Amino acid sequence: MFDTTLRDGAQFEGISLTVDDKLRVAEQLDRLGVRWIEGGYPQANPRDAEFFQRAPSELSLETAELVAFGSTRRPAGKVDDDTTLRALVDAGVGTACIVGKSWDFHVTQALGTTLDEGVAMVGDSVAFLRGEGLRVFFDAEHFFDGYRTNPEFALRVLEAAAMGGAECVVLCDTNGGALPHEVQAATADVVAHLDVQVGIHTQNDGGCAVANSVAAVLGGATHLQGTVNGYGERTGNANLMTAIPDLELKLGITCLPEGRIERLTSVSRHVAELVNLPPHPADPYVGSSAFAHKGGLHTSGLGKAGGATYEHIDPAVVGNHTRVLVSDLGGRAGMAMKAAELGVELDGAAAAALTDELKRREALGFVYEAADASLELLMREAGGWRQDLFSLEGYRVTTYHRHATRGGTPIDDDDEAMVDTEASVKVWVGDERLVAIGEGNGPVNALDHALRTALNGRYPALARIHLIDFRVRVLDSSSTTGAVVRVLVDSTDGEHTWTTIGVDSNIIEASWQALVDSIVYGLVHAGA
Amino acid sequence: MFDTTLRDGAQFEGISLTVDDKLRVAEQLDRLGVRWIEGGYPQANPRDAEFFQRAPSELSLETAELVAFGSTRRPAGKVDDDTTLRALVDAGVGTACIVGKSWDFHVTQALGTTLDEGVAMVGDSVAFLRGEGLRVFFDAEHFFDGYRTNPEFALRVLEAAAMGGAECVVLCDTNGGALPHEVQAATADVVAHLDVQVGIHTQNDGGCAVANSVAAVLGGATHLQGTVNGYGERTGNANLMTAIPDLELKLGITCLPEGRIERLTSVSRHVAELVNLPPHPADPYVGSSAFAHKGGLHTSGLGKAGGATYEHIDPAVVGNHTRVLVSDLGGRAGMAMKAAELGVELDGAAAAALTDELKRREALGFVYEAADASLELLMREAGGWRQDLFSLEGYRVTTYHRHATRGGTPIDDDDEAMVDTEASVKVWVGDERLVAIGEGNGPVNALDHALRTALNGRYPALARIHLIDFRVRVLDSSSTTGAVVRVLVDSTDGEHTWTTIGVDSNIIEASWQALVDSIVYGLVHAGA
Repeated sequence: MFDTTLRDGAQFEGISLTVDDKLRVAEQLDRLGVRWIEGGYPQANPRDAEFFQRAPSELSLETAELVAFGSTRRPAGKVDDDTTLRALVDAGVGTACIVGKSWDFHVTQALGTTLDEGVAMVGDSVAFLRGEGLRVFFDAEHFFDGYRTNPEFALRVLEAAAMGGAECVVLCDTNGGALPHEVQAATADVVAHLDVQVGIHTQNDGGCAVANSVAAVLGGATHLQGTVNGYGERTGNANLMTAIPDLELKLGITCLPEGRIERLTSVSRHVAELVNLPPHPADPYVGSSAFAHKGGLHTSGLGKAGGATYEHIDPAVVGNHTRVLVSDLGGRAGMAMKAAELGVELDGAAAAALTDELKRREALGFVYEAADASLELLMREAGGWRQDLFSLEGYRVTTYHRHATRGGTPIDDDDEAMVDTEASVKVWVGDERLVAIGEGNGPVNALDHALRTALNGRYPALARIHLIDFRVRVLDSSSTTGAVVRVLVDSTDGEHTWTTIGVDSNIIEASWQALVDSIVYGLVHAGA
Repeated sequence: MFDTTLRDGAQFEGISLTVDDKLRVAEQLDRLGVRWIEGGYPQANPRDAEFFQRAPSELSLETAELVAFGSTRRPAGKVDDDTTLRALVDAGVGTACIVGKSWDFHVTQALGTTLDEGVAMVGDSVAFLRGEGLRVFFDAEHFFDGYRTNPEFALRVLEAAAMGGAECVVLCDTNGGALPHEVQAATADVVAHLDVQVGIHTQNDGGCAVANSVAAVLGGATHLQGTVNGYGERTGNANLMTAIPDLELKLGITCLPEGRIERLTSVSRHVAELVNLPPHPADPYVGSSAFAHKGGLHTSGLGKAGGATYEHIDPAVVGNHTRVLVSDLGGRAGMAMKAAELGVELDGAAAAALTDELKRREALGFVYEAADASLELLMREAGGWRQDLFSLEGYRVTTYHRHATRGGTPIDDDDEAMVDTEASVKVWVGDERLVAIGEGNGPVNALDHALRTALNGRYPALARIHLIDFRVRVLDSSSTTGAVVRVLVDSTDGEHTWTTIGVDSNIIEASWQALVDSIVYGLVHAGA
């Protein structure tokens, strides 16, 4: 298992990592137990060079080793004054991975040199790095496109890398357009032809990056390059969070040290947070929806014959868990399972009260399948609990839009307008009345600021609670701006993430409900 | 091509479709050119039943036919008093798709009946529907799990469906855990064994839904079930937006009528808007990042040898385009086509100004694909036109939430609160200043009322213009309630419908922009 999240994954649109971020991602990869961590491209990127500088003193890796990435020497250049190769030697790691061209078209067109020189660039560069005492992996760029059009040249490039001393030649589907049957056949050919370890590196442009990785392994590859959550240029790289369990759990091929695969879900979510991208609920194995069930057919099947009936694996094996979606359920059995999942005790009377309340609220447009935190608060309330952190007397929020005044002449819309929002909040904590105002980019932001200011100092845990996403859906489109609005808010305390909901004909009020639930849930779980 | 977005896709966590939504999604599927649209499960879901009722008068389909979904009769039940089968007959469509169990374990455990009865349930149900004059597709639930453990029973079930008159037996990987090599081999066995059309239906739990669909087609399947954008339970269904171009462009297998595949990107994004889920930038073929290039290596390669060097297909073939990140290129040719489509004349200077303005606005989060009316106004403005219907001096909108006052005692949140919204608007028509206030269910509604009151009597056509839908999306989830908000508004004059857009960090201001564009567009087209 060779992870390239820090190099190829960092090309993903929206990812921009600091050196600190990279160190923390590397810790997570080591925690998961991958064998190799490609840390970056030290010659091309000063941040990557700094990462390799700081890693020895700031990272203590248990199972993984760092690899530095670069490319072969320039056409007609010399290896010993090549800055890219020199940077690999200077990176201070024991292993380098270099990329070279294996598609004839690219050698003649993009490099503008001969095929013989293309082969020599690869062989020379590998041999030079070996001479400097490094272990070398060779990434054969565009291998499958090259193999399709000129297999003889593509194999010559691999041979040159092997003869130069590369310990693994990695077949790269750089454009990501290959299909599994093709990848498997080509990989098997290479394995039969060469006496060196063969690896696979795929991109997801045809939606087959994981399947192509599996196909290559079936064809004889024993080294797999991919990234956490499939991050990578364009459509991304092979998602190791999917490929690893496919190989380990379905084909019995060991990828990680004993006992590590159960960290898969936690590492996936932790890295998503480090790169500041929302996790995909629908991601295989590790997504929050991956083992979520709704629909009468499936839930009744589950009750009778256990999870194996409707789950392809036991979610606990990858550190995930089954979730029962409350929508459409109605039934008491599902409710009890859900309460157990959330750790709330529900007696018969409370369960009955909750069922009625859920029915009433679902008719209003509340959907609790996506809002576990609000559901937990409702369950607690069904058992008689009331939050006594604060109660609301009222709020007011105003948005102003003003153009600069210019007497009695018509005003041009194109001029820069001033848009301001101001909120005031009046709440009670015990018998103390707290009043505050807040400004913000918009009404929800202003209300959030005002409420935090009002509660200032009462609940120190509040400082760690932050809103991270906010989604709005209009439910009844027949009456439009007078329609019912559903707001979902995702919040985090830096460790856990939760979702709350609000529904009202007024978007401000719906947002307020979700905001209050979010803060109450966060404070309750912080022990406030 | 059999689309089940409206049935299986609707199981996706976060999707909740009204009947209107379903009708509009069906229009998009027909626009794409799929052969079959599974509209829903009429017996289990009243909304689906209403969809089938309204479809004949409200949908005019060009290439597609609707299919109603249900299941086989109950164990030991009779077909002629079975409510599910009856609902399929009553749905008023010519084709039904029914699901039945092909995994022995499920028949004995989940249904609690014998294997012989399991087979009879399938055969009887298909034959009954055929007798009622319907064409029948049979979905063999858990086929690959069943085939793995008891191939003889799994094949008996398929045979019963075929003998009952099913025109296609569909092999379903219901738990989504199969791998391509296994799917291809099992499909080839079934094709060799049965004299009936064979279909494939996959889920993405192992990250291989698309690859499994392709593998089944290589194994001889000729009917493919999937959903737009891969929506579906848990990790989703086979993504038709990926599987269709994989089959058409890489294997040369025709899936859609001539000329339709170029609508793929537009349909994908339009449906995402209709179901109110953000499109995934990294989605193969149709994602906004699918042909986005950054990194020196690739961008220089592109310049020298053209897109083919670093793109697996020509993005225009699927209606997408290459994006060079950082400096986003709009493309003059497409602009000219669009202007012609909207009936706006654009000379060279105006086209250049528009390109610049679009670049600036797209960077802010405006997306004009879904907002033709706002785009048309921008195009007119690029040619020097300015709307002179009214101009804004300012607005103010306030929402109050008040609990009944009760002196100095803490107030109970559960009491009914009063929530009010009031807006004031100051506009100029010519050199006349008009001021009005409006109340509403929420801020946008109140602003709409205030603006209409201010303009009262000036533009009689305004009375016919109404807002019919309102969609909100938060664009940059990293800064949350301070994030950028995109609002889309659909309006109608009773005859035509148009969409406008607003983007701002403040949801009120974004809504106002979309509202003003909507009214200006409506009045301009009414000749005001």
